[in-house]
Amino acid sequence: MLKLGVIGTGWITKQFVAAAMATKAYQLTAVYSRHQESAQSFIDSTAPATAYTTMDAFLGSDIDVVYIASPNSLHASQALAALDADKHVIVEKPLVATTMEFEKLDEALRKKPSLYLFEAARHVYEHNFEVVNDFTHSQPVDGATLTYMKYSSKYDAFLAGKLPNVFNPEFAGGALMDLGIYLVYDAIAWFGVPENAVYLPHFLKSGIDGDGVARLDYGKFAVTLITGKTTNSELPSEIYSGKQTLMMDNAAELETVKLGDQVLSTEKLANPMEAEAAYFAKAIVGKDRSAFDKAWQLAKEVHQVMSILRTSANLDF
Amino acid sequence: MLKLGVIGTGWITKQFVAAAMATKAYQLTAVYSRHQESAQSFIDSTAPATAYTTMDAFLGSDIDVVYIASPNSLHASQALAALDADKHVIVEKPLVATTMEFEKLDEALRKKPSLYLFEAARHVYEHNFEVVNDFTHSQPVDGATLTYMKYSSKYDAFLAGKLPNVFNPEFAGGALMDLGIYLVYDAIAWFGVPENAVYLPHFLKSGIDGDGVARLDYGKFAVTLITGKTTNSELPSEIYSGKQTLMMDNAAELETVKLGDQVLSTEKLANPMEAEAAYFAKAIVGKDRSAFDKAWQLAKEVHQVMSILRTSANLDF
Repeated sequence: MLKLGVIGTGWITKQFVAAAMATKAYQLTAVYSRHQESAQSFIDSTAPATAYTTMDAFLGSDIDVVYIASPNSLHASQALAALDADKHVIVEKPLVATTMEFEKLDEALRKKPSLYLFEAARHVYEHNFEVVNDFTHSQPVDGATLTYMKYSSKYDAFLAGKLPNVFNPEFAGGALMDLGIYLVYDAIAWFGVPENAVYLPHFLKSGIDGDGVARLDYGKFAVTLITGKTTNSELPSEIYSGKQTLMMDNAAELETVKLGDQVLSTEKLANPMEAEAAYFAKAIVGKDRSAFDKAWQLAKEVHQVMSILRTSANLDF
Repeated sequence: MLKLGVIGTGWITKQFVAAAMATKAYQLTAVYSRHQESAQSFIDSTAPATAYTTMDAFLGSDIDVVYIASPNSLHASQALAALDADKHVIVEKPLVATTMEFEKLDEALRKKPSLYLFEAARHVYEHNFEVVNDFTHSQPVDGATLTYMKYSSKYDAFLAGKLPNVFNPEFAGGALMDLGIYLVYDAIAWFGVPENAVYLPHFLKSGIDGDGVARLDYGKFAVTLITGKTTNSELPSEIYSGKQTLMMDNAAELETVKLGDQVLSTEKLANPMEAEAAYFAKAIVGKDRSAFDKAWQLAKEVHQVMSILRTSANLDF
C-alpha cells in the first residue's frame, strides 16, 4: 500500500484520491494546504489523514508518493522539493510551464534513479487510448483533427473582471496549457514527434490564450488540434487513413472509438483517473523502470512540442 | 425565360442545368465544349440545345446568360469574353484564381452596368444559410469551427501518378480553392471581413494544398476553417455564442441547423443548386441591381480574403 500525500485540495485532487483509493494500491496519509481549514475539510470529505500547512512538515512525514495539483506555475518547484525529500511524485498536467523546468526535473531524477515522477495525463492510460494507438500504428495515417474545447467553470468570473489562475499568465494558465496538452499527448503518442508545429491562439485581455488552433506538420501529413476554454465544442475527433476515418467522441474523453459506423471499443469510466493511478502505483511498487521511462520520454516530447507551440505564438511565461 | 448557354459538360454543369430547369426560369439553348461529342452527349442527356465547339460561335448565339464550369484557371477569361459579348454570367466557384482577375471583371462590369455576373457559391442562397445568418447577426459571436473536407473522386488517380485539374496548380486547384472557398463564404457572410487571416496548408507533391486549416482573426474572436480533398471528415460545423453552440451538419451542406439539442431548421434539398439558380434568374429578369450588388460585394470580400490566405501560405498561381 503506497502512502499518499496530496498538495492542493480542489475537485481534481478529490477525484484523484477517489481513483487512487479505488485501485486499492494507495492509502491517503497526508494533505497539504496553506490553510488548515481547507486541508481538514478535504480530509473530512475523503479519508482519515494528517493535515499539514507547511511544506517541510508535509514532505518530512511518512509518505511514499506525493500528488501535486496546485496552480501550474508551482508544479515544478513543488515536484523538485518532493524529489529532494525522496518521494515519488505524480504531478497533474501540465507538469511544467517551461522546458527549463523540465530539464531541472530530469536532472533531479537522474541523480535519484530509484525515484519516479509521473505527469498525470489521465487519458493516456485508458483502454481506448490504446485502441486508437493500435490503429495509428497499424494503418497508414493521413492526418487528424483533434478537439478539446470547453467553457470553463471559471470563465464567468473572468468575464466579471476577476482573474482565476487558469486565465492568469502568472500561473501559466490558458487553453493550451490546460486542455490543449491532452491533444499534444494524443498527437505524440499516436503519431510521434512532428517535424514542425505552430499555434495560433486567440488571446484574452489577461494575456493568455482563451482558445487556439495548433497545426503539427509530420511531413507526410498534418494534424490539427483545436482547444479552448471560453466556448463549448461538441466536435468529435477524427484520424484519417485513406478513405477511412476513425472517430472518437473527444480526444481527451475517449468513451467510444468508431471506424466509420463500426464501433471498435466503448467504455464508460466510473472515474477517468483510475487507469493512471493504477499504472503509477504498479510502476512504483514493482520498481518498473521501463514503465517510468516510457511515460517520462513521452512527457519530455510533449513538453518540447508545447514549448515550440508557445514560442510560435509568443506565449511566454 | 432566360436562354442559357453552358461552358463545360461535367457533372456540375449537369446539376446546374437540372436546377435551372427546375426553377422554370431558364431554357437550355447552347452548349460549348472543345469536343463536339461531349457537347452532343450532354445535350442528349439533358435537353435540346445547339452544340458549339468554338467560343466565338457559342457567345455569338442567341443566349442571355452563360454558366461557366471549366477548370478554375479559365473562369475569369471566359467570363470576360462572355461580358464582352453582352451576356450575363454565372461562374462556378471559384470565380477567379487571383485578385487581379477579380479587378478585371469588376472593371468590365462597371463599363456595362446592365450586365450581371454571379459566382455560383450555391449554399449562400439556401434557406438554412439565412437561418445561420440570422443567428450570427442577432447573437454575440465568440468563434466558430467550420469544416468541409472530402476525399476527392480524383484523388485515387492523383495517387496513381496522374494530375487531375483539381490537384494541379496550373489550373488553380487545391483544397482551399475547391472546398475551402465555401467556408470563406460562410465566414464573411456570417461574421464579416476578418482583421487578419492565415492559412496553414499541407502541400501535395504537385504543389497544391491537399488539406489545410485557416484561422481568421476578428479581434474579439477567431474562426477556424478546416478543408481538404484527401481525407473524409464527418465533423459538424459549430458557431459559438457564450455557452451556446450552434451546430450544422457541415458548413457547406446545411441540412440541419441546431442550437444545442433544439433543431432550428432542417431541409432536404432535391437539388442544392436550385436556390442559387432561382436567385440569379430573379435578379437578371427583374433587373435587380441591389441583388447583384449584394452578391458581388460578398464575392469581392471573399476573393480578397482568399488572396490573403493564399499569400500567407505561399500558395501562388
